This record gives sequence, C-alpha cells and structure tokens, in this order.
Amino acid sequence: MQVALKSIEFNRSVEARGVKLSDLVALPTFTGWFGPEEEGRRILKVQCFTSQDTPNYFMRPIEGLYATVDMDKLEVIKIVDKGMVPIPKAAGTEYRYNVQNKPVHMDRINPISIEQPEGPSFLVEDGHLVKWANWVFHVKADHRAGMIISQATVRDSETEKPNSRILMFTNVERTGEPRSVMYKGFPSELFVPYMDPGELWYYKSYLDAGEIGLGPAAMPLVPLNDCPRNAYYIDGVFASPDGKAIVQPNMICLFERYAGDVSWRHSEILIPSADIRESRPKVTLVARMATSVGNYDYTFDWEFQTDGLIRVTVAASGMLMVKGTPYENVDDLGDKHDESGPLISENVIGVVHDHFITFHLDMDIDGPMNNSFVKVHLEKQRVPTGKSPRKSYLKVKKYVAKTEKDAQIKLSLYDPYEFHIVNPNRKSRLGNPAGYRIIPGGNAVSLLDHDDPPQIRGAFSNNQIWVTRYNRSEQFAGGVLVYQSHGDDTLQVWSDRDRSIENNDIVLWYTLGFHHIPCQEDYPVMPTVAASFELKPANFFESNPVIGVAPIFEKDLPVCRPFASS
Amino acid sequence: MQVALKSIEFNRSVEARGVKLSDLVALPTFTGWFGPEEEGRRILKVQCFTSQDTPNYFMRPIEGLYATVDMDKLEVIKIVDKGMVPIPKAAGTEYRYNVQNKPVHMDRINPISIEQPEGPSFLVEDGHLVKWANWVFHVKADHRAGMIISQATVRDSETEKPNSRILMFTNVERTGEPRSVMYKGFPSELFVPYMDPGELWYYKSYLDAGEIGLGPAAMPLVPLNDCPRNAYYIDGVFASPDGKAIVQPNMICLFERYAGDVSWRHSEILIPSADIRESRPKVTLVARMATSVGNYDYTFDWEFQTDGLIRVTVAASGMLMVKGTPYENVDDLGDKHDESGPLISENVIGVVHDHFITFHLDMDIDGPMNNSFVKVHLEKQRVPTGKSPRKSYLKVKKYVAKTEKDAQIKLSLYDPYEFHIVNPNRKSRLGNPAGYRIIPGGNAVSLLDHDDPPQIRGAFSNNQIWVTRYNRSEQFAGGVLVYQSHGDDTLQVWSDRDRSIENNDIVLWYTLGFHHIPCQEDYPVMPTVAASFELKPANFFESNPVIGVAPIFEKDLPVCRPFASS
Repeated sequence: MQVALKSIEFNRSVEARGVKLSDLVALPTFTGWFGPEEEGRRILKVQCFTSQDTPNYFMRPIEGLYATVDMDKLEVIKIVDKGMVPIPKAAGTEYRYNVQNKPVHMDRINPISIEQPEGPSFLVEDGHLVKWANWVFHVKADHRAGMIISQATVRDSETEKPNSRILMFTNVERTGEPRSVMYKGFPSELFVPYMDPGELWYYKSYLDAGEIGLGPAAMPLVPLNDCPRNAYYIDGVFASPDGKAIVQPNMICLFERYAGDVSWRHSEILIPSADIRESRPKVTLVARMATSVGNYDYTFDWEFQTDGLIRVTVAASGMLMVKGTPYENVDDLGDKHDESGPLISENVIGVVHDHFITFHLDMDIDGPMNNSFVKVHLEKQRVPTGKSPRKSYLKVKKYVAKTEKDAQIKLSLYDPYEFHIVNPNRKSRLGNPAGYRIIPGGNAVSLLDHDDPPQIRGAFSNNQIWVTRYNRSEQFAGGVLVYQSHGDDTLQVWSDRDRSIENNDIVLWYTLGFHHIPCQEDYPVMPTVAASFELKPANFFESNPVIGVAPIFEKDLPVCRPFASS
Repeated sequence: MQVALKSIEFNRSVEARGVKLSDLVALPTFTGWFGPEEEGRRILKVQCFTSQDTPNYFMRPIEGLYATVDMDKLEVIKIVDKGMVPIPKAAGTEYRYNVQNKPVHMDRINPISIEQPEGPSFLVEDGHLVKWANWVFHVKADHRAGMIISQATVRDSETEKPNSRILMFTNVERTGEPRSVMYKGFPSELFVPYMDPGELWYYKSYLDAGEIGLGPAAMPLVPLNDCPRNAYYIDGVFASPDGKAIVQPNMICLFERYAGDVSWRHSEILIPSADIRESRPKVTLVARMATSVGNYDYTFDWEFQTDGLIRVTVAASGMLMVKGTPYENVDDLGDKHDESGPLISENVIGVVHDHFITFHLDMDIDGPMNNSFVKVHLEKQRVPTGKSPRKSYLKVKKYVAKTEKDAQIKLSLYDPYEFHIVNPNRKSRLGNPAGYRIIPGGNAVSLLDHDDPPQIRGAFSNNQIWVTRYNRSEQFAGGVLVYQSHGDDTLQVWSDRDRSIENNDIVLWYTLGFHHIPCQEDYPVMPTVAASFELKPANFFESNPVIGVAPIFEKDLPVCRPFASS
C-alpha cells in the first residue's frame, strides 16, 4: 500500500474519485502466474477500497482502478484506470454490534447455559497432547495450515494393550489397546478462483494457505462468541519475519459438545411389552481454529466421536469480494447477461467464485506402513429374466488401488463407491481388514479448464480424492512455493508419477468444495455456510464400540441454577 | 404371526431348526407388487427370528424359511423352506444398558449441563402453534408422515406488518412483517430397497410411511436421552383401527440448540488496530420426531435458524436387516462374490440396501400463488483467445421452469445448478425476486432399473428434485395406497402430466438418499448416520437479517452450579 501511494498518478486517480487518501484501503493481492508479465519478477496487484464511514470497506470497492507493484523494486509498474464506477454507499455496511442502529424484530432468545460442573473431561498435556474419552491426539497451531491434528489414536475396548498381554499375571490396568488412526491431518491448501475474466479481476484465484498462511491470518478467538463457555484455549507460536517467536493467544479452542443428538438408538415396537427405548446422547470433542484470510473467515473444526468417527467441518463467513457496478437495480441491467454475478446491493455485484479446501490426511491405520486404498464399488446388476421377480440390484465389488493413478477419484452420484483405507495385515475376528472410510460431503468440483492458469496452480482440485505414497516433501497440495507457481509441484504432478500405493505408507487427500453465487443475504456480512466430511471406522472395530456406554439419566445431569436468580 | 403359527408345516420347520415357538418372532412384511402372485389378494410374507437369549432378535434370523400369508383368508398359502442355515449366536447382540457386561475402555465424560435459567424462548399456543425468535409455525404428529410442519412464516425486520402501515398514526407495535415461507413440509415417503434378488429377499423394498406409518411406529421420546434437558414435549393424537382417538405421549420434542457454532463472524486483520472481532453464536430451534419402523430408527429434525434457514435432518440408527449365512469368516467365502453384502458377525450378512426419504415441501414464498421454480445454472465459459489471460470461467444463467418436466432434476457435480423457488411478483429493493433455495445434501440416487417392480412403486426416487402444481390429492409421493401399488399414482406419474408450474401454486419435492453397505460397527446396533438438506433464503431478505443480533457476553450467560455441589 505504501508503494502504491508513492505513485502520484495513482494518488490522482484515487482522489479524482472523491476518495480521501486517509480513507483509502489498498489491498495487495497475489496475482498468480499467467505468463510474461510475471516472468522474472515478484509482483502484486493493488486493489482499492474506501473505508469512509464504515469499517466494512470490502463493500466499498473503488472499481476500475488498480496498480501493479514490483515488490523487489518497490515501485508501481502499471496503473490501469478504466474510468469512474460509482463507489457503493456506506449505509448498511456496518456490522459491529456497538454501532448498529437497525432494529431486529425478533423475540428475545433466552440464555442457554452450558456448564460442566465437574469440569471438562479432557486433559491437555504439555500444551498439545489431548486425551479425551477413548481418543489421544496432538494439536497445534501452524503458520501455514492453521491447525494440525496429529498422531490420533483411539482405544479399542475389545483388545488389550499389547504390553498388558505380556504382563497378564501382573496387576496391570487393562484399558484397551490404543490403535493408530491418523498420523497427521490438516488443510493443505485453499483455492478460491473468481469467475470474472476481465482485466481487473482475471487474476483473482487465491491459494490462501500458501500465499498468506492460515496462522498469521488468524486473530484470537473470542470466548463465548467463537467458542462456548466450556472451551479451553491453546495459544499459537509463530515465527515473525525477523525470526523471532511470536505467541498468539487463543488460536485454538477445545470443547465438548452435546448438541442434543443421539449416538445410537432403538425403540422396540414389535415387542411393545418389553418397553425397550434405548438411546445414547452423543457427546463429542471439538478442536477449532478460525482464520480471516482478508475478507473471508474460515472456521476449521475437527470433531471426535466416541464411536471412532472424525468429522471435519469448514465453515465460511465474513465478507464477499465484491465488484462496483453502475447499476442500482436489476431492471437497469436488461439483457446484459455478461455480469460476473448477481446484484446484491446498489452498485454492488457479488462476484461468483468457488472455494476448494484440500485436506492432507496421512492415515496410518494400525501403523504407518501396510495401508491400502480400496474402492468399494456398488455395481448395478441386471437379473437374468426368470431368475427373480426383481430385475436389478446393486452388488459390492472391491478394487484395491495398485498405483496413484488408480486413486485419482472423480465422484459421481451415478457410479457410487465407498473409499476405504485399510490395513490388510490387521484382520478382524471375521477376517475383514481394519479400515476407515472417507465420507465426502459438500462437494463442488472445479470446472475450470485444465489449461487455465489458475487451474494449473490449483490442479489438486482436478480430482476430489487422491491417494499418494508418503513423501515428506509432499505436504502442500499446491506445492511448497505457490506464489506464481507454474504448477510443477502440485498433487497432480506427484500423483501422475503413479507410484505403488498398495500395502504401503500412504496419504489420502480430499477436497471440500463450494460454488458460491452471492445473494442479498450475504451483504454486508455473509451468514456462515458449512460443509463437512467424515473419517469413519469401517471394520476397524469388531462391533459397535459404544454399545456399552451409559445413557444420560436425571442423576447424571445436575440441575443448575444461575447465581443471581431467586 | 398368529396365522403363520396355525400352519403345522410351518411350526415343524421352525422347530426342526431347534427354535422353540415361544422364542419365535415372526415379522410380517409387505411384499409390494411383482405380478401374478399378488393379483387380487392381500398377502404378506412372514420372516422369522428367534428371541432366545436376546431382545435383539433382528440379529438372529432364521434364514431359509418364510411363509406367505393371505390376509383375507387368514391362512398360510405357501411355505418356502430352503433348508437349514445356522442361526447366528445371541452372544454380543444385547444392547440394553442394564444388562451390558462388556467393558468400555474410555475415560469418563463429565456431565454437560444445559440449562435455560429464564426458561425456553419459544411459546407453544393451542398445543401446536410455535412462536420463536422471528419464526411462527404449526407442528403436529401425524399418522403417516410422523411430523408435519406447516404455515411457517418468518418475520422480516426490514418491512413492517401491512396493518401497521395503515395504522401508522396509532400506537401500533411495529414488529416487522411476517412473511410466508412454507405452507406444509413433511417426509412424504420412505423407500428402502434391499439388494438381494434371491427368492427369500427379492420383495424387500419397503415404503415405510405408506405401508406402516411413521406415527404408529413411534414410541415416546425419552427425555434427556432422545432430547436435551431444555426440551418441551408434544403428544400425538392418532386414530386406532376401531376409530377411537389414541393419545401417544411425547411424540415430538422442541428445543433450542446452541452447539457452539457461529451464525456469522468477521475478524479484521487488515486494520488490526481496529481490533474488530465480531461473531454471533448460532442458536436454533429444533422440532424432532423419532420413529422405529421395525428394525430401523429414524429421527427427523426440522431446525429453524434466525437467518431464515431451515435445515431438515434425517438420522438413521437401530438394527440392520441381516441375513443368515453358513460362513463365519470371510476367508471361508473364497471366490463367492455373489453374497448380498459383507459379513458383519459370524453367520451374519449385512445386506446392502438404500434409503430414500422424499419430502413434500409445499413452499409458499410470500403467498400460495405466484411461485416459480428457477434453475440457476453455473455454465462453463471458454474465454476467446487473447481476450483475457484466463481461459475459462463460470457464468450464471437462470432458467424459469415452465412445466413439470422442466423440473425433473437429476443432480450432477459436473453440471451444477442452484434451485430456487421465487415469487416473481415480490421483488426486492434491487429488483430481485424473493426466493428460497433448496440445498441438497447427503445424496445417493436410486440405480435400480426403471422396469424393476420396486422402482416402479418407488418411482419418486427417479429424480432428486421435482416441482409439481399443487393438487390436494398429491401428498404422498408413492401414492395414497402404496401396498401392492402398481405405480400408477406416484410423483413420476403426476409430474409426467407436465402441468404448467410458472407463477403458480407449486410443491417442491426433494429426496435424501443413502446407500448402505453394512460394516462390523453396525452390529448389533448401528451408530447414527445423518444427512441434511437446507431451505435457505436467497434474495428473500434485503440483506443479512441477523446483522443486528447481539453477541453473547459474559453477562448474558449466567454461570450456574449444580444443586448438590459444594
């Protein structure tokens, strides 16, 4: 921003629009790599907003103007001024509670008090090692990935610690075997391409983790607002540009959740006299991190269930990246269908874009080696005429992926598969290999052409699931260095090496995706949109591992009263 | 069951298997319509289990034997005995807490106390009319649908009640306009086809709502286990076979949920000095009903958000419908790939099956008439060479469905659409028509052939989304009478009439689907699997309707202590 302001021409263009330089917010954005212009130099494009009368400058773009800055020479090398576009109004953009003046007509919601009178059930040892119910895992804040979960193990009540077998005649505590599930899991890259090929917008296709880092983009979580009362907070330690350690408080919160759902249930209606009505409330442990990558706020939740399931949720909120337009009403637009998104306020276009969040999931089912990726196919069968009154059915067929190309997966509703990571060397009593499934959710796929520069850099979104051979240098799906990447160090490139992945140390990659067509409700801050995927035991346990847990009866849940009430 | 037991031959077959008649559980199952055998008579097929040493007889099938019963003559008309198949063991099938003896090795989870010291925020008037925050809706238990939500309206803070405008000089309370969203929503039919074409299994393709009814299959919810402490319960009134009214207690629960998530958030990192960290906890209202259709337990949640979103969740738990097999280990199976599902316990096959739950969603956006269905297409565009450094992008194009066939929707990841119900006569300040989107989730599609008898009866699962012209007799997607239906009164048939649906009174239909390949963890009771879809405002409000709600600060959430603690 300082560099752009050094340019007299740039300042003149800003002031010509009636914007005071003191109100100017210049957002330096990464440009990616499109060819000659970027060759041999480090450039940023500076996009401008006015913060006049609002902290929500994102809704007040100064459209039609941008500067290209050479970051080595620290000078403006190009200014594009396509002429005046009305700057959208400040009215209606404020979102801070203290300065709201718009009435909200809804009945008051009474407080909901969440309390754990005996304290939380988890322990955090050495600041990072979390022990809860049948889970042990390590959690830390990370510069690039925001939050990393590692060395996740779950206790199996049906088997004992190997040690305790050896010492079976001694007085050893038999606590069940801790079994490895995942060595490391984290959001490896975020890819956010915008859908406007115009001169001032074409380059917007961000790789947020690699370009900015989810750690530095995070501000401390706000207790009670970002996480519930029973949350525990963990600080993050990051390196500053000069190499010094920076402690950022409250980067992660951990809390137990009871959202009123059941872990399992059965009521027996066929033998009503037995009056069997069994249900088990579901309590989970959530590890949360939230980051504000400029306009967007992403919340990452890793939720652990006692039945062995891990649910990963990405929630998006914050501000849209919007575009100024001369139009104030859709009727003015007439037949002009070339706009890059819908009108969401006067003079404001919500530009259509995608979000792809690619997770690195280094699964280690019962150990780091000896894992395989199995495609469990539901194949439609036609019944030969006369064989059955039925004409068709689905049959399960399993395919073990031999090499990485066998594991480049495009999901389809019309050709359904389950996807398992199994350890063929660890078999259940019945002979089934121990495994975990990945259950996709919230899928949108990138439809950009494979020769489009953003898609070349974001090539990890070419498939929704991949499995690669473990390689220490292959952590970040868009490559270690993504700024102006030519796409030669992406998950696509690694996977195309087609290494053997059978019975090996393998890494699962999964991409959650959203298409986002903005609407009026996204203005001036968008309501949270969330999507999840799950890692779920599949023949990992011998049977339902939570069959023996207690229901909640009155005695287990102390009635509590507020301090101040009568 | 009594009818089957009248047959000496049947009793002999049961006893020949070492099963005492006093332990026999005979499950009369609907057969559907497959042709001549069913013509002109009402038949059921009786499938048998033993309850010896377990209440979980579902895991102890007497495979290889079934009886066909004529329900008019009340006699057995056919017995099929394919010979002995080992009956799976009782050990490990028990699930009641009081008689569990299997240790669960996990650290204790401390109680989580949910309390509303000032009581719940909702009012229930006349037993059925619910008022909460900005929502008003009617809820009732229903014989067939389980639970029906109707006449849902949400208050719009940006406009006033029409009356209050007329009376603007009087002292009227200006509370915002209540705006119609949905006339009626409910699960219209459940379709559960099993994937075994063999003589003893081919007919299993249930239509649970129409054949059994979700109301009669429900037992009262168990406070604290099925719903949290702050829940309010509503009874159901059903008609008994002799026409008398039956009151079933605790059929529905209503509760406010705070699961620790945010309604929206933004932290401002680009102007860190401002220290803007705004987030709003998300509190929702859940209306829940749970039903046990024989082996399976389904929980239906309608969750209302203050931002206008409605989330509908179906959770499945309970017991699998399993098949006896001679095999005790997958190694014994060898190359026998023709089995109908995986081995999940000794002598137990978890038969592969699908669940399709089709919702009737009579949307009335700002009134019953004048609604249209709009397909909002994201179309891939190729950029002409030289026009931009970009080569491709997505562009929004809107298509208003003229007739019902235009609204027969097969979802595809590779050809993405949003689906809106709009009122073109009610436009926003910007000229956008008021609308709601349906956001699909948890989709599996039926892959059975269209000439397969189960798919003919379950033809409403041929598409994932449909829109029909409102017709009072078209409530149940599989027809009013589904037992032995020939498929001549299904949603497919109605939609194929291709009536005009533009600017009309229309009904949206959506099918949630699951493919279910059982695994060991599903034995002896399956952990809950849930899937959701959402109805979300899209240009219904002028802007984010919860921008002005208060954050939760310490003072809002009274600290509470248990009664008994020191």
